[in-house]
Amino acid sequence: MSDINIVRDGTVTSPIGFSAGGIYAGIKTQGEGKLDIGLLYSDRPCDVAGTFTRNAVVSPSVTVTKSLVEGGGTIRGVIANSGCANCAVGEYGFKDAQEMAAIAAAKLGVQPDNVAVASTGVIGVELPMALIRDHVPQIILKEDGGDEFARAILTTDTHTKHIAVSFKIGGSTITIGGVSKGAGMIHPNMATMLAFLTTDAEIETMFMRQALRDVVNLTFNQIDIDGDQSTNDTVLLMANGAAGNAVISGGDEASETFREALLIVAQHLAKEIARDGEGARTLIEATVEGAESDADARKAARSIASSLLVKTAVYGRDPNWGRILMALGKSEIALEESKIRVFINDIQIVSEGKAIAYNVQSVVTALSQKDVRLRVSLEMGEGTGTAWGCDLTEEYVIFNSAYTT
Amino acid sequence: MSDINIVRDGTVTSPIGFSAGGIYAGIKTQGEGKLDIGLLYSDRPCDVAGTFTRNAVVSPSVTVTKSLVEGGGTIRGVIANSGCANCAVGEYGFKDAQEMAAIAAAKLGVQPDNVAVASTGVIGVELPMALIRDHVPQIILKEDGGDEFARAILTTDTHTKHIAVSFKIGGSTITIGGVSKGAGMIHPNMATMLAFLTTDAEIETMFMRQALRDVVNLTFNQIDIDGDQSTNDTVLLMANGAAGNAVISGGDEASETFREALLIVAQHLAKEIARDGEGARTLIEATVEGAESDADARKAARSIASSLLVKTAVYGRDPNWGRILMALGKSEIALEESKIRVFINDIQIVSEGKAIAYNVQSVVTALSQKDVRLRVSLEMGEGTGTAWGCDLTEEYVIFNSAYTT
Repeated sequence: MSDINIVRDGTVTSPIGFSAGGIYAGIKTQGEGKLDIGLLYSDRPCDVAGTFTRNAVVSPSVTVTKSLVEGGGTIRGVIANSGCANCAVGEYGFKDAQEMAAIAAAKLGVQPDNVAVASTGVIGVELPMALIRDHVPQIILKEDGGDEFARAILTTDTHTKHIAVSFKIGGSTITIGGVSKGAGMIHPNMATMLAFLTTDAEIETMFMRQALRDVVNLTFNQIDIDGDQSTNDTVLLMANGAAGNAVISGGDEASETFREALLIVAQHLAKEIARDGEGARTLIEATVEGAESDADARKAARSIASSLLVKTAVYGRDPNWGRILMALGKSEIALEESKIRVFINDIQIVSEGKAIAYNVQSVVTALSQKDVRLRVSLEMGEGTGTAWGCDLTEEYVIFNSAYTT
Repeated sequence: MSDINIVRDGTVTSPIGFSAGGIYAGIKTQGEGKLDIGLLYSDRPCDVAGTFTRNAVVSPSVTVTKSLVEGGGTIRGVIANSGCANCAVGEYGFKDAQEMAAIAAAKLGVQPDNVAVASTGVIGVELPMALIRDHVPQIILKEDGGDEFARAILTTDTHTKHIAVSFKIGGSTITIGGVSKGAGMIHPNMATMLAFLTTDAEIETMFMRQALRDVVNLTFNQIDIDGDQSTNDTVLLMANGAAGNAVISGGDEASETFREALLIVAQHLAKEIARDGEGARTLIEATVEGAESDADARKAARSIASSLLVKTAVYGRDPNWGRILMALGKSEIALEESKIRVFINDIQIVSEGKAIAYNVQSVVTALSQKDVRLRVSLEMGEGTGTAWGCDLTEEYVIFNSAYTT
């Protein structure tokens, strides 16, 4: 398999042909360096794949983009706003999402159905269309505009999240870029996970969709901040073919390299979201090995990474393996208690389902790292899976309760 | 239907023929008035029904009691300890649970397989059998010992939880008593919900089992403190027939009255558990009406009552209806956004899926009550369901993280 390299200071505009920009329009409260509308552009048509929230209460911004993606056409860009979710606002939500696409399309000189829309922010408030009409035409698209776009989609995130990787297929260098915003909750409403992935590869559409689904299942679907699911979650993958490679269509080494590179990008963005959960101090990586299936392992890993008692134990630097066993047991996967082994940052603390002697101070020190790895071995089969979460701190509660409408 | 009366100062020993007592043996840390072993006795054999944790990691105390109940025999008593869960301790857990039953049986002058066992407390520590051997013989059984038993099973609960009700069937007065302990987490491990229900009614076993299952589904299975599930959850219903009534066997008015009375007892105990969640200040009652089915309504109500964002919003006295819609939507039941109505303590704040004008101060005041009722109407059908939870406060986080093993 070809080497995959991390692009230095890579962003969503690292692949050939992409540019982006952002502006502050006044949709969210003003603050140092804040931006609230981002525009992403490809100088040629992109094939597109996407995954969306399964919440039955859904933003029309999602509905509009989902129908674009499912329609199978190509797109030329994305307009995303932060500060307003465009959700639970009745029929205006659709009109506004469509108009937002049209405003961006006019700016880019393309058709409205060539522009995807995404929104994140407060629920139940209409999009301030006058601000969007006024400010989108002023956005300046730049080849190094990926960082501006990343800033424009932030809500309660404490930092931008982006990455790019590159690899060779035949004589062509292919780049995949990505940007995401956090699942921290937006004050005073729930947040949204948004991720936009770009590539200059030429890819067969069905393979691209399958690869995105597979990768999302291993990454964005394996992170948890607080068990709640936004009305606006959106992951898009856009491929514009500018690298001029032989079409990637699955079933060969080039396809495997592409999938691997996409996984690296998505995993980085997903882990950064988990790490930046509201009030979080620690990234929790829960891995389950030896399950009957990968699906079982992923489910059990999610149960551990999302357990409030595990999250508070990690915050308290408490090697509380009883809570890990409890979270494992409630996941309803096949297991035998007497076979369970548990490791914290590779220090074994449970064997045959019971505590073993270990150096408590070593484990407390392990739990004080920025990344804490909880690993469970089941000895039931070959299934493995990983999930990511963060510790639960008083700051989460304060952050999400301190507001009165 | 016959009148159902609340028995003044009613406890688990209010029904005829039951007595109980408790003692401090040293299983949990000493403290003012603390007890850690409770013994419940019936002067004649009881039919018994039970429901148990579904966690795959399970305490042998549960396994032993479950096999008693499923074996279909009668029991004469229950021994319960707090301070040690008797869980994840390997083969000793079974031996210890069986010996604990035998010690209680010797004290009561009955057979070991006539005594049910329950444990709650720290995981991964063996039961201190020497303390149990020494102290159980010293327990003094009293007809008014229900309160002592209630104290003996507490862990991090802030108060005892018990109730009794009575009603007439023909010329017989029937009493149902109940006691529970909370789903607050035990320091440093997860807690357990224990509930013991007693009655002097004569009941046909199959009806008794069905009635318990139905009632548990509407009460104990509809409460949530933090989404985690203990390894030791146990609900037992014991009926000794001392009231001398015509056998209750389902399908008539007497059976309906019994079921209704059992529901009152279980609902009281379940709500008290939710109200007494660790760090909680407010009981949250979430009701969903107009769902396609009762099962849908119960599922959606659970999703609302257990959402961290709803729990923090209630704590913050924040009429944040967007979070209620989000929690409703993620429950995956059938709904149409444009039909949704939301009420907080009967004040309507959402109509047709959108916010309506309301007096914010009235709603903030409603959210400041000891009980907060969130009601959602879906207009999809006739299904209704209720769930209970509590607000999430900084104290929960501090309580569950402040310990280092």
